[in-house]
Amino acid sequence: MAKKTTLKEFESVFPKLEEVLLEHAKSYNLPGQALEWYKKSLETNAVGGKCNRGMSVPDSASLLLGRPLTEEEYFKAATLGWMTELLQAFFLVSDDIMDGSITRRGKPCWYRHEGVGMIAINDAFMLESAIYTLLRKYFRDHPCYVDMIELFHEVTFQTEIGQLCDLLTAPEDKVDLDNFSMDKYRFIVIYKTAYYSFYLPVALALYLLDLATPDNLKQAEAILIPLGEYFQIQDDYLDNFGDPEVIGKIGTDIQDNKCSWLVNQALAIVTPEQRRILEENYGRKDKQKEAAVKKLYDELQLEQRYKDYEEKVVGEIRSLIDNIDESQGLKKGVFEAFLAKIYKRSK
Amino acid sequence: MAKKTTLKEFESVFPKLEEVLLEHAKSYNLPGQALEWYKKSLETNAVGGKCNRGMSVPDSASLLLGRPLTEEEYFKAATLGWMTELLQAFFLVSDDIMDGSITRRGKPCWYRHEGVGMIAINDAFMLESAIYTLLRKYFRDHPCYVDMIELFHEVTFQTEIGQLCDLLTAPEDKVDLDNFSMDKYRFIVIYKTAYYSFYLPVALALYLLDLATPDNLKQAEAILIPLGEYFQIQDDYLDNFGDPEVIGKIGTDIQDNKCSWLVNQALAIVTPEQRRILEENYGRKDKQKEAAVKKLYDELQLEQRYKDYEEKVVGEIRSLIDNIDESQGLKKGVFEAFLAKIYKRSK
Repeated sequence: MAKKTTLKEFESVFPKLEEVLLEHAKSYNLPGQALEWYKKSLETNAVGGKCNRGMSVPDSASLLLGRPLTEEEYFKAATLGWMTELLQAFFLVSDDIMDGSITRRGKPCWYRHEGVGMIAINDAFMLESAIYTLLRKYFRDHPCYVDMIELFHEVTFQTEIGQLCDLLTAPEDKVDLDNFSMDKYRFIVIYKTAYYSFYLPVALALYLLDLATPDNLKQAEAILIPLGEYFQIQDDYLDNFGDPEVIGKIGTDIQDNKCSWLVNQALAIVTPEQRRILEENYGRKDKQKEAAVKKLYDELQLEQRYKDYEEKVVGEIRSLIDNIDESQGLKKGVFEAFLAKIYKRSK
Repeated sequence: MAKKTTLKEFESVFPKLEEVLLEHAKSYNLPGQALEWYKKSLETNAVGGKCNRGMSVPDSASLLLGRPLTEEEYFKAATLGWMTELLQAFFLVSDDIMDGSITRRGKPCWYRHEGVGMIAINDAFMLESAIYTLLRKYFRDHPCYVDMIELFHEVTFQTEIGQLCDLLTAPEDKVDLDNFSMDKYRFIVIYKTAYYSFYLPVALALYLLDLATPDNLKQAEAILIPLGEYFQIQDDYLDNFGDPEVIGKIGTDIQDNKCSWLVNQALAIVTPEQRRILEENYGRKDKQKEAAVKKLYDELQLEQRYKDYEEKVVGEIRSLIDNIDESQGLKKGVFEAFLAKIYKRSK
């Protein structure tokens, strides 16, 4: 039987990794002030999230083995998990600057901390570098060392092209609904989110256990990318239709001119008159204009449209999982666990 | 006999590499607008510099072989050279944002181009990613593929800690001369500049030719790091004492509160009274205050101090070169070529 990790258990691995990273910097005689800075950046930006991505590496590994991990296996799997968290930290620190965001995980964004500012860009780079320092330290002799490096490089690039497309499609200051399309929406979601959040952790677990045959990787990708797409569409749905008390934040996608699933669905079915309402009210920092869009979403019955989509896509994903070929060591349970965490979530 | 490359020859390789990078992005169906953006970022940021770093890869390779490179060897060496230029582009695009710079290579900095702004951060990431795309495309089967990846990772991290120390030591808005020291100066120069500008190209040439024995790498590092330090000190000297007509720009280190070799030398020998002049005038955006510092530099005879330093360090470097052990294929000529380009340069 597999065993699920807890946030506490996963976080208990971090201090050792932090020590390794600081020792690496110290080996170059980095002056004390800069060393303290690096420590604070690591602790503020890599730690403190829900760690869903990171924890899914040991969880997937345990499901693949069909038993709890040994202490050493857990450490290795969690270390790979922390690398996905470092990759995410690299993206979040820089995305917050690019988006001009104010808060992250309920606290001021890193670049808005006293005295940080644009130094945060270099801090983001150092978070990315930390991935490869850890990979080298712990996996240099692993038969899949090169594959793991190439996986991180490729997923990093995929996320970057997703982010580029997002930045060009939905600039916060220039509303142009002609720029939106379901095609672009899917591209952004798949590349900016699905690869690093869903495919990366499972691919890492497969490499860790030396189960990453081309066929297993392909099967994992074929399920995890649609799953990641579904996850993001749900996120967009919850931004407008979720309960702020439950989600822990108030949705801002309409005011922020986001290329959201909802606005793309609306654009596909609006009358010319309704389109004018969108044109005049979407992407403005104005409560009343936002309310006009929300009213239109209700008239267009987007909530029901989402629910229909959800049932359909979950059916498709279930059938993909059912058809998995387990002969090379892949396990349906890995994907069932992801789906169970996501299906009908309210936050 | 070795043969030196020219900028024209080196630049003629770039279109092929650009094509590979754009094809790679296209393989993910990156939408046209984003593809055009990536192309423009590559052409604006990677091309147009003097390419001294990049060209020193084929030059070093030819010196190591003691003959001109074949066409295929040249292409491979120049490709590695372009990766060092991509690394530099990644740093320059982001440094310009962090420093709030206005121009780069006589044109507006990338982030100041119409419509770019903070998207430049993501563009910098993509320039970095391009290194690994090219490395994978052309060197996946090279016996030193992993070593080359690790070299780029390590040099990237070294440059980042150098940049961090620089940003913390000399914030443009807060003058605190107590923060400066020759130790910090040396740390910044070595890590922020010397590794990627001097050590990286030669190490790449050694890997390319499979001559990168631990001993050869160590010998190269032991000469190229002091050489890089000398180069940067010369840069700092020219910023104040060089001829703007010849250098092509007017020095701004004093006004920009730079942790320059000159101010560190001054701090080491000033009387309490002269120190007050520095405290009151250094790092201010004010022509007259800058002039007061320049006058003090003259009184302290920093020009002569630099010339004494130059003679001393060049003597030391020459003796390091003389003592090189060539038995594992390293060649003195590689380092003599670097020194000849630098010694008593006026721009």
